Amino acid sequence: MTTYKAPLREYRFLLQELFDVGELAKLPGYEDATPDVFEQVLEEGAKLCEEVLFPLNRSGDEEGCTFENGVVRTPKGFKEAYDLFRQGGWTALVCDPEYGGQGLPHTLQFLVEEMVSSANMSFGMYPGLSNGAYRAIWHHGSAAQKRKFLPRLVDGSWSGTMCLTEPQCGTDLGQIRTRAEPAGTDGVYKITGTKIFISAGEHDLTDNIVHLVLARIVGGPPGIRGISLFIVPKFLVKDDGGLGPRNGVRCGSIEHKMGIKASATCVINFEEAEGYLLGEAHKGMRAMFTMMNAARLGVGLQGLALGETAYQTARQYAQDRLQGRALAGDKFPDKPADPIIVHPDVRRMLLTMKAYTEGARALAAWVSLALDRAERDPDPAAREEADDFIGLMTPIIKAMLTDNAFAATNLGVQIFGGHGYIREWGMEQLVRDSRITMLYEGANGIQALDLVGRKMPMHNGRLLRRFFHPVDAWLRQRLEKPELQEFVMPVMKAFGRLQQVTALVAQKGMADPDEAGAAASEYLRAFGLVAMGYLWARIAEIALGRLGGDEALFYKGKLATARFYMARVLPETNTLFVNIAAGAKSLMELEAEAF
Amino acid sequence: MTTYKAPLREYRFLLQELFDVGELAKLPGYEDATPDVFEQVLEEGAKLCEEVLFPLNRSGDEEGCTFENGVVRTPKGFKEAYDLFRQGGWTALVCDPEYGGQGLPHTLQFLVEEMVSSANMSFGMYPGLSNGAYRAIWHHGSAAQKRKFLPRLVDGSWSGTMCLTEPQCGTDLGQIRTRAEPAGTDGVYKITGTKIFISAGEHDLTDNIVHLVLARIVGGPPGIRGISLFIVPKFLVKDDGGLGPRNGVRCGSIEHKMGIKASATCVINFEEAEGYLLGEAHKGMRAMFTMMNAARLGVGLQGLALGETAYQTARQYAQDRLQGRALAGDKFPDKPADPIIVHPDVRRMLLTMKAYTEGARALAAWVSLALDRAERDPDPAAREEADDFIGLMTPIIKAMLTDNAFAATNLGVQIFGGHGYIREWGMEQLVRDSRITMLYEGANGIQALDLVGRKMPMHNGRLLRRFFHPVDAWLRQRLEKPELQEFVMPVMKAFGRLQQVTALVAQKGMADPDEAGAAASEYLRAFGLVAMGYLWARIAEIALGRLGGDEALFYKGKLATARFYMARVLPETNTLFVNIAAGAKSLMELEAEAF
Repeated sequence: MTTYKAPLREYRFLLQELFDVGELAKLPGYEDATPDVFEQVLEEGAKLCEEVLFPLNRSGDEEGCTFENGVVRTPKGFKEAYDLFRQGGWTALVCDPEYGGQGLPHTLQFLVEEMVSSANMSFGMYPGLSNGAYRAIWHHGSAAQKRKFLPRLVDGSWSGTMCLTEPQCGTDLGQIRTRAEPAGTDGVYKITGTKIFISAGEHDLTDNIVHLVLARIVGGPPGIRGISLFIVPKFLVKDDGGLGPRNGVRCGSIEHKMGIKASATCVINFEEAEGYLLGEAHKGMRAMFTMMNAARLGVGLQGLALGETAYQTARQYAQDRLQGRALAGDKFPDKPADPIIVHPDVRRMLLTMKAYTEGARALAAWVSLALDRAERDPDPAAREEADDFIGLMTPIIKAMLTDNAFAATNLGVQIFGGHGYIREWGMEQLVRDSRITMLYEGANGIQALDLVGRKMPMHNGRLLRRFFHPVDAWLRQRLEKPELQEFVMPVMKAFGRLQQVTALVAQKGMADPDEAGAAASEYLRAFGLVAMGYLWARIAEIALGRLGGDEALFYKGKLATARFYMARVLPETNTLFVNIAAGAKSLMELEAEAF
Repeated sequence: MTTYKAPLREYRFLLQELFDVGELAKLPGYEDATPDVFEQVLEEGAKLCEEVLFPLNRSGDEEGCTFENGVVRTPKGFKEAYDLFRQGGWTALVCDPEYGGQGLPHTLQFLVEEMVSSANMSFGMYPGLSNGAYRAIWHHGSAAQKRKFLPRLVDGSWSGTMCLTEPQCGTDLGQIRTRAEPAGTDGVYKITGTKIFISAGEHDLTDNIVHLVLARIVGGPPGIRGISLFIVPKFLVKDDGGLGPRNGVRCGSIEHKMGIKASATCVINFEEAEGYLLGEAHKGMRAMFTMMNAARLGVGLQGLALGETAYQTARQYAQDRLQGRALAGDKFPDKPADPIIVHPDVRRMLLTMKAYTEGARALAAWVSLALDRAERDPDPAAREEADDFIGLMTPIIKAMLTDNAFAATNLGVQIFGGHGYIREWGMEQLVRDSRITMLYEGANGIQALDLVGRKMPMHNGRLLRRFFHPVDAWLRQRLEKPELQEFVMPVMKAFGRLQQVTALVAQKGMADPDEAGAAASEYLRAFGLVAMGYLWARIAEIALGRLGGDEALFYKGKLATARFYMARVLPETNTLFVNIAAGAKSLMELEAEAF
């Protein structure tokens, strides 16, 4: 069985040592979100995740969801767990107090999301999707729409979905065929079409499901400019807020997937379903995109969450499993064999997992703090700055964190040897569950194009400058500190090369978009590794000052991992920079039929 | 659904263009193994694999094996397919004609194994294990043992297993507890103990199962020097060859695994089972190791086999799936969208798969030709040379080919986007099935230790020289050929650095074994990438000369893939060499409890 204890000490390190979460409480509306409140909420969340959600993770995977006559049942225990989750107020955490929410910061929400996913990623999909729907309606809904739908999404008695994909289109939403016909009343439409891959599209956890559906208003412009967003509830909602008759929304089937088996992935058929235009007609994509940053960050968090569980479990196994002897001679001659953690290669795998997961969490926390500033800072310039940073980092968080998480969960299996392949141990489930994070919310290749094709040129490179300048300043200020050389120098070197290839990619991409496309994935990864390296250098600086106290082991762990990062992880950029410089030719020269 | 057509053109390229399979027919005993015979056998094998085995691959995964009251049932259709397989003589291919075999070369057997695994890896496990048992008895058995067991293993009416692992030990076989007590008659023992992870340990395909069991003769030396190998049949065999009573061998359960679900992985309990000492007492490990090279090569082949199926299927999808537009402008304005193969990043993924899979096959063919020479060459010096080469390359083939295969099957999923995650499409099964290849027959970290700790120092580096010298000579002969510069130069550079780090690792490893252990995995990978780069350079040389003919597209594909390899794959060594040079410190400094 896997092991999971919420990494509360790690959270404290990020919130109070690496970053200063106290700053959040100075923002209007966040006055109550003091570091103490963070601690309390995280402790409560930890309990729920460890005691309620985590024990359902294996059984949920084994049992999966079932589909019969249009009804989807979640695995045993999920309904009870969901009721506890919702009664605990966890669906309301980040929501607007006007609709019953607790108005707490995104930063806190993200840490809770991480714990939930570490414990039971499939479970986390249900409230996660609701939160997306909540956000879309909160941002774009009319006052009446908000009054009607938000309170029940906030208290979790209803859930939400995002209905984008159709059989013929996922990435390319301009091909959407689901159509909306005006139904006579202003803003009311009849929605008809089939959507696939709808997470939480149908289930038995809530009384109603609020679908957010992308559809084409009949007679609207073709392609992506004719797509609108609609609210389509499973049950119609009466004026008094009570449930009316069933709407024309039916689950056609559920998908049988590699993982996240306890998350219902549905085919949803809309047949003249009553839907309400959300935001402006034909501007559905824009409305959808406002949810996208948070959703993509959330997927990155799912990744690191599974990396955490894999790490905790593999660490335990490596310390317990007696097999073979240390290469340099027996470490525990009185035991039948040494624990496998004596082996350099096992340590290499564990340290990679640790470096990836803790580095990812630092990166995600950095961005989520910006998300709160972008929403709440009274200074428009500060908001813009935060927004730029989020825009730049979102594709990196989504893609790199999920790639790394898949690598980390696989290293976890590898440390277990053959036992890692056996379902009972739970390690292979982490691999299967994490695999989806590289695919949904825009496959990772799409993230790379977003970075290179949109974020990089945006505002003449302003987003990039907003990252490059402070990092550069931080590094330069430490050039003279001998104890930091081993961290600052490798990051500085990689950072310099990153700036060079940035110019190269921008320049070549201008002349030939395929050049940008050819560099995209490796550029994103190099950027992410440098950004993470910068954070590991900052972490090392903190750890160096705290090796003497009670928690020496904790800081030694940080320091050793930072060293490992510089010696063994960051050098991946050597390859990436060469690959980027190689350009598009070797990718594009071959005729499609010669593959 | 996945797609699979046996890559017969690829086989011809390897056997007749890159290498010269005609040489094999000059070896004594292989006179009949002409290139024509190779072609015929491969064509027949292709039919069986495409038409019989491949259609059972998905259903076999969905259904899995079942266990009830000690009886294991393989999925629907497997028994019929196995009967066809055995009636076609496929279990006898490489076996000694004295026992009913066809005496064909290993090289041919390996290509057939690849096709079988591409079509249905789980199915291939059953005859694969039998072949291992055949080989052990053929090498180490007495004349009576051979007469008793080999003909039925050869004709496939019985199958075999290798029983090594126990709950407390996999890698560290010195910890084996299964015991053998002399039963009165010379060479006969009572075997008692529990073995786990026994592939094909129990099933319904054959009349009898011949287990090869590692056990400790009571009173023998402790540790690995007290392990002996025994033949333990499921049913006792009468003197006339007929089946006698059931032996004390029972299947306790089957494992529920991540993949290869149609392959029965069994817990086998031996209770005073009658067993026959195979080879010398206490020398069981040595006997086991004679099977190991072939078994490890076989696992490498399973890897590339799944990479091939993933590549064929992903290529088809990338050519068919219309989604989005080419970055540089519409390629097919008359279609609703362009096929995704127009995108540089999709091509990057496909070319990586192609480079890995075809490079792997070339590497494996090179080694399997040596295997045939090592067995049959009348010149002892030539045999020794071939043996050295096999010893050196086996861990590389096992580890790198399976790491690459897992990467390739995952790229296949990535090209499919969300559809890749859905079981119906079959892509995720390839990921799950391929994952085991990195774990069994010695996890890949163990392979790396075998390379660095055993093969590198063996005979004062003779194995390495046997690889370095001819590669060096080949490269030097081509230094002046302008058309080969783009291939020879990058390989030469990486090859030079490989020689440097070889000296470094050997030197540091002598002083501190942890230094060798810290470098092992990355050294193995760097070695493999250079060896594969050398083969891609040779392939490019051939392709360059044949671009004009009917098969221009085929050779263009080879050439473009060779270029891609130099530009985008081989540069991974840049990182690996840096990692190797970083040494053990960053891995070893942290206390185990600080992880």
